[in-house]
Amino acid sequence: MGVEDFEIINKKIKKIEDILEKIKKRIVKSNNIAVIGHVNPDGDCIGAQLGLGLALETLGKTVYNVNQGPFDDDYARNFENNFIKDTQSDIDLYIVVDSASAARISYDQDKIDFNKTIVIDHHLSNNKYGKINWIDDAYLSTCEMIFLLLFFLKVDINETIAQHLLNGVLSDNGYFQHIRKDKFFSLYIVYLLIKYGGDPNVSRNLMFCNNTIQTEKMFALALNRLESRADGKILYSYIYDKEKNEIGDFHSGMFFRETASIKGAKIFVFFKIDEEKETINISFRSTDDIDVSKAATLFGGGGHKVAAGAHVRGEFSEVKEKTLKLLEDMLRDTASISS
Amino acid sequence: MGVEDFEIINKKIKKIEDILEKIKKRIVKSNNIAVIGHVNPDGDCIGAQLGLGLALETLGKTVYNVNQGPFDDDYARNFENNFIKDTQSDIDLYIVVDSASAARISYDQDKIDFNKTIVIDHHLSNNKYGKINWIDDAYLSTCEMIFLLLFFLKVDINETIAQHLLNGVLSDNGYFQHIRKDKFFSLYIVYLLIKYGGDPNVSRNLMFCNNTIQTEKMFALALNRLESRADGKILYSYIYDKEKNEIGDFHSGMFFRETASIKGAKIFVFFKIDEEKETINISFRSTDDIDVSKAATLFGGGGHKVAAGAHVRGEFSEVKEKTLKLLEDMLRDTASISS
Repeated sequence: MGVEDFEIINKKIKKIEDILEKIKKRIVKSNNIAVIGHVNPDGDCIGAQLGLGLALETLGKTVYNVNQGPFDDDYARNFENNFIKDTQSDIDLYIVVDSASAARISYDQDKIDFNKTIVIDHHLSNNKYGKINWIDDAYLSTCEMIFLLLFFLKVDINETIAQHLLNGVLSDNGYFQHIRKDKFFSLYIVYLLIKYGGDPNVSRNLMFCNNTIQTEKMFALALNRLESRADGKILYSYIYDKEKNEIGDFHSGMFFRETASIKGAKIFVFFKIDEEKETINISFRSTDDIDVSKAATLFGGGGHKVAAGAHVRGEFSEVKEKTLKLLEDMLRDTASISS
Repeated sequence: MGVEDFEIINKKIKKIEDILEKIKKRIVKSNNIAVIGHVNPDGDCIGAQLGLGLALETLGKTVYNVNQGPFDDDYARNFENNFIKDTQSDIDLYIVVDSASAARISYDQDKIDFNKTIVIDHHLSNNKYGKINWIDDAYLSTCEMIFLLLFFLKVDINETIAQHLLNGVLSDNGYFQHIRKDKFFSLYIVYLLIKYGGDPNVSRNLMFCNNTIQTEKMFALALNRLESRADGKILYSYIYDKEKNEIGDFHSGMFFRETASIKGAKIFVFFKIDEEKETINISFRSTDDIDVSKAATLFGGGGHKVAAGAHVRGEFSEVKEKTLKLLEDMLRDTASISS
């Protein structure tokens, strides 16, 4: 690659040179390094751990890549064997990635010396539990930060390292679905990671190719039940837990991704009904102008502006009507405020 | 934006300076410029025409943005009013974008002086019907080429121009779904276009938010009929034309996009059955290692390696069995070759 490919990276690094220099000094003087992630690791955590781990090995370090799991989803299970569950005691340096709090770390906290710990994370809520903390929510993924660090450390980024980081960046930007006008630096990083030999199709297979025919039949059932309120501004559907057992496993994210393609829709609701326990799980999604966390809160739940949820007791038809009525009122209020 | 943002562009432009210089000279000495696209314009054509047209206006040119349509899909219809169907006769320069042949141009060929015509296109099959022809299939979209040209012309790329070009690039890279290890320059262009003020969410709304509840119910029907052969390597489904009329319109692309998420699947087939005419439309898709154009050809159709189709006469159950048998044989041959 030519020098010109890195001008944007060099500019970015200039702005964060102080923290990178601190991290570098600690790495240089350490030999045995534990790289640690969070429980139930997602693509970003896995990519950051493995990319950083391999890079440190190329620098001659002995690396312990620790994650006790659990490795719950199909994506994570692909990588379970790349991690160890424990490490020996003479660790010079702990680097914890992508973990917003010490409680989220997937390793025994009493085995970590937090005075020898560097925390690297892109979550705004990170409570800086390390000796050195590089926390910046300007990045969509922790892997982007690892890339900048490796670049600063002058690591030779080989195809394998590039692939791990690419997997991570694409995981947290939802394979480009969360690219926004105010956060798109990951596009440039992805451009470089492909130049370094990463393959976006490999990432895609890891992320999206775990469905079965039964998943799709359950998805079809949910889609077929699709109904609307408020002139199509509210869309909803539902499944019963027993159907999931009869037909197949299904993630409501598929429903939300699909229904986001419907013209004019603003609020998306999915009910999961457990008849035995007489409970209903309500998931809400919305477009940018509607705050569904308010609705979730009224049902004793919570979440973000555009993605929230609640768990309620009751009979489905009643809960459904109460929910839709509430959302219709919210929509009317939003309309009257904006008019 | 800083100089560093453009280092990669400057390097790219150096390699194509000769053709850009030729195009620039013709533009500079022209006042009345017709910008022309192809019939049934897609996102790339529309973005390239509108982006280039606005840019030429900022350079003080009188621009005639011509496209007679038809504007068949929802995306295109959004922009129909941005185009005129005819132009006056004293045109100094015709610029035709994204049209692989003169026959594809959405304007009367006898009204175009091809001696005064520049052709800009990324289709390999373009037969160079202009006086100046800039044809390069290294780009995923014509809009990338327009971006390089505008950059070379030192056009002030405002938000509107950036949005048009962004729409076009994202259309032809399938909103990042066709980014491959060997063609990913569009990522860098998208990065810059967002910096210039383009909003990828606007593009997404244009591309993906035209479905109705009825579209989804038809999609659900197709998904619910999903079946497999050859240990899940072949997936297929079908609809009857009359169902489309009863339930809703539905594009088989939705089926292929969704079923690509199924683990182990390699060949995807969709049958559209017209019982009245006794004809069946067969669409094939495949992963990189299977050439479905061969199957399509055997049925009198054709296409690309990973996307092909055929139109046959016959009774569905027979056609289905014949098709699946053929594909099973193909799979076996592929397996024996690669083993």
